[in-house]
Amino acid sequence: MRTSIATVSLSGSLTEKLTAASRAGFDGVEIFENDLLASPLTPEEIRARCADLGLTIDLYQPMRDIEAVPEDEFARNLRRARHKFELMDRLGADTVLVCSSVSPLAVDDDALAAEQLGRLADLAQDFGIRVAYEALAWGRHVSTYDHAWHIVETAGHPALGTCLDSFHILSRGSDPKAIEDIPGEKIFFLQLADAPLLAMDVLQWSRHYRCFPGQGGFDVAGLVRSVLHTGYDGPLSLEIFNDVFRQAEAGPTAVDARRSLLVLQETVGIAAPPASVAPTGIAFAELVTPDAEPLSAVLGALGFARTARHRSKPVDLWQQGEARLLVNTGTAVRRDGTGLAAIGLESPDPGAAARRAEALLAPVLPRRRAPEDAQLDAVLAPDGTELFFCATDRPELPNWRADFENLAQAPAPGHAARIDHLALTQPWHHFDEAALFHRSVLGLHAQESVDVADPYGLLRSRAVTTDDGSVRIALTVGAAPTDDTVHAQHIALATDDVVAAARRFAEAGGRLLPIPANYYDDLAARYEFADGELETYRELGILYDRDAHGEFRHCYTPTIGRVFFELVQRDGGYRGYGAQNAPVRLAAQHAARRLTGG
Amino acid sequence: MRTSIATVSLSGSLTEKLTAASRAGFDGVEIFENDLLASPLTPEEIRARCADLGLTIDLYQPMRDIEAVPEDEFARNLRRARHKFELMDRLGADTVLVCSSVSPLAVDDDALAAEQLGRLADLAQDFGIRVAYEALAWGRHVSTYDHAWHIVETAGHPALGTCLDSFHILSRGSDPKAIEDIPGEKIFFLQLADAPLLAMDVLQWSRHYRCFPGQGGFDVAGLVRSVLHTGYDGPLSLEIFNDVFRQAEAGPTAVDARRSLLVLQETVGIAAPPASVAPTGIAFAELVTPDAEPLSAVLGALGFARTARHRSKPVDLWQQGEARLLVNTGTAVRRDGTGLAAIGLESPDPGAAARRAEALLAPVLPRRRAPEDAQLDAVLAPDGTELFFCATDRPELPNWRADFENLAQAPAPGHAARIDHLALTQPWHHFDEAALFHRSVLGLHAQESVDVADPYGLLRSRAVTTDDGSVRIALTVGAAPTDDTVHAQHIALATDDVVAAARRFAEAGGRLLPIPANYYDDLAARYEFADGELETYRELGILYDRDAHGEFRHCYTPTIGRVFFELVQRDGGYRGYGAQNAPVRLAAQHAARRLTGG
Repeated sequence: MRTSIATVSLSGSLTEKLTAASRAGFDGVEIFENDLLASPLTPEEIRARCADLGLTIDLYQPMRDIEAVPEDEFARNLRRARHKFELMDRLGADTVLVCSSVSPLAVDDDALAAEQLGRLADLAQDFGIRVAYEALAWGRHVSTYDHAWHIVETAGHPALGTCLDSFHILSRGSDPKAIEDIPGEKIFFLQLADAPLLAMDVLQWSRHYRCFPGQGGFDVAGLVRSVLHTGYDGPLSLEIFNDVFRQAEAGPTAVDARRSLLVLQETVGIAAPPASVAPTGIAFAELVTPDAEPLSAVLGALGFARTARHRSKPVDLWQQGEARLLVNTGTAVRRDGTGLAAIGLESPDPGAAARRAEALLAPVLPRRRAPEDAQLDAVLAPDGTELFFCATDRPELPNWRADFENLAQAPAPGHAARIDHLALTQPWHHFDEAALFHRSVLGLHAQESVDVADPYGLLRSRAVTTDDGSVRIALTVGAAPTDDTVHAQHIALATDDVVAAARRFAEAGGRLLPIPANYYDDLAARYEFADGELETYRELGILYDRDAHGEFRHCYTPTIGRVFFELVQRDGGYRGYGAQNAPVRLAAQHAARRLTGG
Repeated sequence: MRTSIATVSLSGSLTEKLTAASRAGFDGVEIFENDLLASPLTPEEIRARCADLGLTIDLYQPMRDIEAVPEDEFARNLRRARHKFELMDRLGADTVLVCSSVSPLAVDDDALAAEQLGRLADLAQDFGIRVAYEALAWGRHVSTYDHAWHIVETAGHPALGTCLDSFHILSRGSDPKAIEDIPGEKIFFLQLADAPLLAMDVLQWSRHYRCFPGQGGFDVAGLVRSVLHTGYDGPLSLEIFNDVFRQAEAGPTAVDARRSLLVLQETVGIAAPPASVAPTGIAFAELVTPDAEPLSAVLGALGFARTARHRSKPVDLWQQGEARLLVNTGTAVRRDGTGLAAIGLESPDPGAAARRAEALLAPVLPRRRAPEDAQLDAVLAPDGTELFFCATDRPELPNWRADFENLAQAPAPGHAARIDHLALTQPWHHFDEAALFHRSVLGLHAQESVDVADPYGLLRSRAVTTDDGSVRIALTVGAAPTDDTVHAQHIALATDDVVAAARRFAEAGGRLLPIPANYYDDLAARYEFADGELETYRELGILYDRDAHGEFRHCYTPTIGRVFFELVQRDGGYRGYGAQNAPVRLAAQHAARRLTGG
């Protein structure tokens, strides 16, 4: 099916919007009137630009406050409509969206609405234009899709049909099932939007919080199935009013948009990208650093041994148990200091995983490797992290480990068994995209978002995981766009004895993040501990949490560049990430930064 | 009355919060538990710090999910409470806030709630502590203030009283009048917060959108009057959860907070700062620039004449009609280029206006003047604009004009009669403060906020004006904190013939902002114009708007640094600012910037 996007969904000038829609692979656009008004291009130039970009103009929108008004007012509306039809003729657009009236002049008279919409359709027909009538969720007298359809049916005009918008239908809690009673050829257009489930004024909700399908709480797929059932064969078109997208660059937003439609099409069974291949573990995490010394000191104290070195690149492999970290000191490393740059995802079928990622518009990374290196497929996540699909020591597959030459040091019998989770700061404008990306491209499951109070603003955090917890990534985002680079990334290492691991870290010269004594007084108030247990936590700086399933103990290293490490002990099936303790940890990190002037 | 603020209302570490509260002149604080937990200071150190800063600790908060639970659970709650009372003893805090339970374990049994709260109060009494029980708007069984009071009354315990919170009361639409039936000595604490009138989930509303009294839509003053009627003599305390304040610097937020309480106290008649003195006009607007050439060219083309020069500073006065602009090329000018730095407000009593501003915590500017210069009182607005309270040619008052020596050029019989309005970009974190500042300090009236779509994000705009429109300032704010310096300030000049003014500007070599042809096609669709009228607007780039009162025609100069000029013609009592046209203007300005590489 053809895909389309309303220009209001993207930021920038009309030219920028059209270019972004085309590059992301959309087939067409809805031209939002205000974008046209503000454009220095004539309608003919816009038409030519769209043609050059391979875009059809699927809809001109919106016309407002047309129907069910006194005759003199309707005469003015027809005059206005004629101007717009002439414009659409120049533009080469053959369908116009008419929203149900919100005018105080409109009366509650379906027969009058049908009669006037019929006369509008008469005029439209003269221009070869079709009128798609849509119920706004906050329309004055017409606010449900079945009501709008009833009026269209009453008018019985060949140039008059209905436009369905998933937001207007689902935000009111309407059952989309009755869509199946509408003849497909009378559904002139289908606009899709999702939204988070907010209890708020529907107009404000619609104008500021819409999001792409799969990024909110609506069953957009269910609605689309009902529409497809009618035989509708027009475009699937996204109309998203969103305050964040308005500020974000149009290019990435358009890609995010089309990915959401691809996933929706897969869900409803009208597209079949390569199947999802969920990862089975984290093969490695790659750190880049201009100066390996501070990182080496912390890794050594954590129990990692430098076990191997890449044959052709300045990359060391540090290992303990199944936890593997690459430390890259190459010249190509980013200039913004020490950071987490890449993740190796252990994949049952790396090639298939990469094919799905590419089909879902993940940017494929060029393979920069020496001739003898293993072939590794990699794509870029929305936050710029490189994701490698790889296999570790599986004879049937190219082994990334084979690119490394072993050093004298054998893997230590360390304290940490594996990487428990990774936490990655996401770009502020792309947090919802990040969750959908990790779900759809990587086959992970997204948990609920949680808010965490940092001393200087609220953070949001959302975990994406495999069912068995073998891969856990916490996507975090700061309070404002400026925070993108402020907040740290971290690598959490799983241990089955965090006290022993913390002690050995301290004995090896490591210094854990100091946690205020007040925190432990509060723990004592909330829980009962075995004798001496709390004193041990207090001494070492270990934090404690509990959920319905089990217990969680964790502590933190200092931050190096943008990265710090966490030692975590999960017992009894604890499922969280210690969010309860995050405000204390964040405040302690701010305090440590003030001390070091960082 | 004493004033207090909850530490959660301010950003930063506990130390930063306390310092900010003290500097802004608060008498006390509520210590929010999470702030204490995250602080490296011991309770004794916090107590000492507060004492040093002249702050009392008026409340420790909150204790949650205490009452109306099974006995074994209540035993655990008492154990937890004992820990907290010991902590409060170290802290020197004698009142604790207990919120009505949201626990699934709580039962709907007022007698049990009263009995258990009584036992909690027994324990508290041993520590010399009072328990203030408050109904959360989303409490499981207790969600209204009268219900909470009923339970407190039933318990009949001297160490148990109620805490009233204006948000929890007014967000539910409860009538605060029944507060007057509560004995004043049983109201142990009063927390004040305002909020914008949003139709949304009350918990989310409370946690993210509270604001300072006078900055939202609640009748906080009415509630306070009812509380005062009871004889309550505890502190007026602000407890504000607000996502923006969390990110803003604590110092300015604390000042904003205390100003809101001062205004509230004035409103309810328990404080009497110097009376408000509304300005009667704009005496001048002062532009600073490192290079006067481009500005001089535009001012000349607009019809301004350079009529005078300051005796002791590199400041020129440009004038036409009653519109006066100062152009300051002094070395003290800001480094960020050409901008609007100061406004001279024509005041009936400049000294009184300044005294009120100072009493309401407006930073008073030191007088930098030569001995012979007129004495001018000035304060700083939240956006850094200097506000001078002054008199123009009134013999009984020092005349700022007297500091200027006339040049040969006489004021031209210009096209513009006076300054119609000024538009000033506000710092993102202080938009609500700006409106309250202009209302309370300057005696202006705030209009409704309007959203305006810029191609790269939504802007908000709110006008503050005198009744007669002699002073109009449009406060605007960008979509994100990073936009603070992106958006321009502007000076709108009133003319009674914008077509003639625009023509003369063009003839003098000025180039008006080009407006797209599509905009005029749309005007033709919406309105009927006299023959040739629309063609004239199209030719010159004049925009058109209409409201219930009259018509508005306006056009724009290019932007110099951060400043541009607008020529406006108001007819028939038009009240707005052409917000309808702002998206087109903003897009045209972006396009112009791209052309000039600015």
